[in-house]
Amino acid sequence: MAKNLTTREEDYSKWYNELVIKADLAENSAVRGCMVIKPYGYAIWEKMQAELDRMFKETGHENAYFPLFVPKSLFEAEEKNAEGFAKECAVVTHYRLQNDPDKPGKLRVDPEAKLEEELVVRPTSEAIIWKTYKGWIQSYRDLPLLINQWANVVRWEMRTRLFLRTAEFLWQEGHTAHATKSEAVTEAKQMQDVYATFTENFMAMPVVKGIKSDSERFAGAEDTYTIEALMQDGKALQAGTSHFLGQNFAKAFDVKFATKEGKQEYVWATSWGVSTRLMGALVMTHSDDKGLVLPPKLAPHQVVIVPIYRNDEQFDAVSEAANKLMKELRAKGIRVKFDNRDTHKPGWKFNEYELKGIPVRIAIGPKDLENGTFEVARRDTLTKEVLAKDVIIDHVVGLMEEIQTSLFTKAIDHRAAHTTEVESYEEFKTLLEEKGGFFSAHWDGTNETEEKIKKETKATIRCIPLDDNNTSGKCIVTGNPSARRVLFAKAY
Amino acid sequence: MAKNLTTREEDYSKWYNELVIKADLAENSAVRGCMVIKPYGYAIWEKMQAELDRMFKETGHENAYFPLFVPKSLFEAEEKNAEGFAKECAVVTHYRLQNDPDKPGKLRVDPEAKLEEELVVRPTSEAIIWKTYKGWIQSYRDLPLLINQWANVVRWEMRTRLFLRTAEFLWQEGHTAHATKSEAVTEAKQMQDVYATFTENFMAMPVVKGIKSDSERFAGAEDTYTIEALMQDGKALQAGTSHFLGQNFAKAFDVKFATKEGKQEYVWATSWGVSTRLMGALVMTHSDDKGLVLPPKLAPHQVVIVPIYRNDEQFDAVSEAANKLMKELRAKGIRVKFDNRDTHKPGWKFNEYELKGIPVRIAIGPKDLENGTFEVARRDTLTKEVLAKDVIIDHVVGLMEEIQTSLFTKAIDHRAAHTTEVESYEEFKTLLEEKGGFFSAHWDGTNETEEKIKKETKATIRCIPLDDNNTSGKCIVTGNPSARRVLFAKAY
Repeated sequence: MAKNLTTREEDYSKWYNELVIKADLAENSAVRGCMVIKPYGYAIWEKMQAELDRMFKETGHENAYFPLFVPKSLFEAEEKNAEGFAKECAVVTHYRLQNDPDKPGKLRVDPEAKLEEELVVRPTSEAIIWKTYKGWIQSYRDLPLLINQWANVVRWEMRTRLFLRTAEFLWQEGHTAHATKSEAVTEAKQMQDVYATFTENFMAMPVVKGIKSDSERFAGAEDTYTIEALMQDGKALQAGTSHFLGQNFAKAFDVKFATKEGKQEYVWATSWGVSTRLMGALVMTHSDDKGLVLPPKLAPHQVVIVPIYRNDEQFDAVSEAANKLMKELRAKGIRVKFDNRDTHKPGWKFNEYELKGIPVRIAIGPKDLENGTFEVARRDTLTKEVLAKDVIIDHVVGLMEEIQTSLFTKAIDHRAAHTTEVESYEEFKTLLEEKGGFFSAHWDGTNETEEKIKKETKATIRCIPLDDNNTSGKCIVTGNPSARRVLFAKAY
Repeated sequence: MAKNLTTREEDYSKWYNELVIKADLAENSAVRGCMVIKPYGYAIWEKMQAELDRMFKETGHENAYFPLFVPKSLFEAEEKNAEGFAKECAVVTHYRLQNDPDKPGKLRVDPEAKLEEELVVRPTSEAIIWKTYKGWIQSYRDLPLLINQWANVVRWEMRTRLFLRTAEFLWQEGHTAHATKSEAVTEAKQMQDVYATFTENFMAMPVVKGIKSDSERFAGAEDTYTIEALMQDGKALQAGTSHFLGQNFAKAFDVKFATKEGKQEYVWATSWGVSTRLMGALVMTHSDDKGLVLPPKLAPHQVVIVPIYRNDEQFDAVSEAANKLMKELRAKGIRVKFDNRDTHKPGWKFNEYELKGIPVRIAIGPKDLENGTFEVARRDTLTKEVLAKDVIIDHVVGLMEEIQTSLFTKAIDHRAAHTTEVESYEEFKTLLEEKGGFFSAHWDGTNETEEKIKKETKATIRCIPLDDNNTSGKCIVTGNPSARRVLFAKAY
């Protein structure tokens, strides 16, 4: 395994791309913009899915599955949503291939098999789902409808990057229907909270909860609630969004319900999603120049045991101790791998597991057997210590929590050090280039000012934070009144 | 809830369609041939997935994810596979929509956004996966490669039926690579065994393990191992297949490995899959004229408690007992629902849960409280008994196993009663129409005879069973020698 990662200092973007590939998370495929998620990357995604799925179910949601395709006439029904996604839609136009008469052994699209109506490969499923909900909702008794779907979606992006922006990606999309506006708003906020809890408690990635400005809002939404994280290079990453859709889709698909009083009213809606993009966020939040750093709660293997030996006799003795340790740690609910392959040397394995970010590595050699000790190495701090038999289990169990907390604290500190309150546009522009990070600044609330800042600096409003910091001031660009500071950053 | 299912006797096919819809398993969507899997149906599918996924992992497989799209040039690389699926491929030809200049508010495919190479929506993933494996396999150390994918696939079927045959369906597809032929054959057989274990132990659906005849083999395979089940109407259903692919895909995609001796050899392959079709099989194996019958191991709710009351005071008392019972059953690992809705009467609830196939229903009323009893009803036998407080928990726990076993036994008996050894083509044709089911008959091994039988009777060879019944005889059609009996049936 050739390691030699480009360092973050040298080229952050190149470091990321190399790391994703070398740590066996994902790779580019033969299909433009589509990735292959490799087993190790997928195992981390499965852990994320399991926790999110549990949290969705605990908040009353059920899973279902809706079609991959959206007929064009349905897709265009909610105009703003259609307009927002039209430019990146993969479109199925035919349903059959045939032998190419001009090229033996080759196939061509059968011109006779043209669809009457083209099918859009879902970029998001509001249209097909609200078409379906029309059949499911008649009365207030049918509400709320709280449904989630795990699915693949396709958005034909021109510039793609593994996990962060791919033509096809995996995600979950929740779609709920409610009798009242306030219930729908509460749901949208609840799911923002669920996402924030997940990213902070499991990914050890702090996020700012906020609301999107008009120009950054989801196409077809009334309000978009977002969670925004800060990567090590000072760029922001939108990690999850939850939309209050008002009655837009209910009106587009004519979904009304009979109230208790017998009146017909349009239904209120939300939708919310996180995707395999979170994998990119996870990598960029914690990893270092030696490779991946995984929080214990999401690591497929939390501990790896590497045997050190020179002959079969030593291997047998070390293996016995390793198997015993593995069994005891597993009994404590820890995911342990014992790498007893004789095809690779210990040094190679040490590099491999550093690259793959396994939180704790335990080495056992003949000397350890003599002394009744183990060598325990932490991936996050790259520190090592030698521990006695009688404390090893409790220590490793404790390390899981300690590493999880430590990663979160480190990320919080990094964010604090890279969040700057600025009072002038000059200061903003200078520090944006020199230091990066989040900039908390006053803004006059207009699209024009936002657009000007974006054009001149590439920074966008990541969110209007949902915190108590509501001091008014003057817009850094126009000097016009501002009700509160908002958060700017360059973003992924 | 209008029940009134068509009976199986009246019209089996109509009964099935109505049941799937009325029990809230799935429904047809706005997209031709694509279904919506509703929350209740999806919850059963999730249970199936969880068990299968566990079994795959226990046999050493890892999950990964490969692209939805297959470029046409890759798709056509393995000719037999391409030929087998070409006629049912959805094809993406464009990547953008635009405003239709002739119809304000409508969209059309942007003629400028035509793909250079068309993309096939995967009908199966051998092509894209073997293209990927070429990069992953260099030496014997990289083998075996044991990977599974949970995904959606699209096959443009002309006649579709919910779960049994849909244009889009959900499935898992395993794709493995091996150094030797015998290892690959062993893998293919192992996965057939895994499928049989799953269908018999979890779905309570007996299957015949066998091998497909030439004409029924998967396009691109050397051998297809199959599990075949018998439905209540005497038609067979192919429930899962596992293919030994030889070196066909390795050759098509030039995937070679260096042996220990340093020679370059083509890799050996398998692929294997089961799909949401199993949902149809589950419905048709056990259900009756009153609705669904679910085996306890796959039932989202294994027990439902229905309160009987006339006033708030009674409701409170009954609820207290119900909650206590629910807690005790849950402590035993049983999935219990307490339906305390005041919007529906007990009779309505009884019907609802019969329709939805919940294995055990417990009713609690004021009289039960007085007597310290519960009324326990079994869905499979439609029997009721009154049980005392002190035996209820053990009894219900025992019922889970008893119902699971009883369903399996009943299905075994049905299959035994509908499996007939026939000695002549006349007998075969007569009994096929009169009685249906599996027919064990001698066949001369030729495609011609198989084709003639299919044309004249619509029965096909479901499999050449992998059992010890190897007595030779004479083909029922040609009188030519036959090495062993094979299994015929009309099939879904």
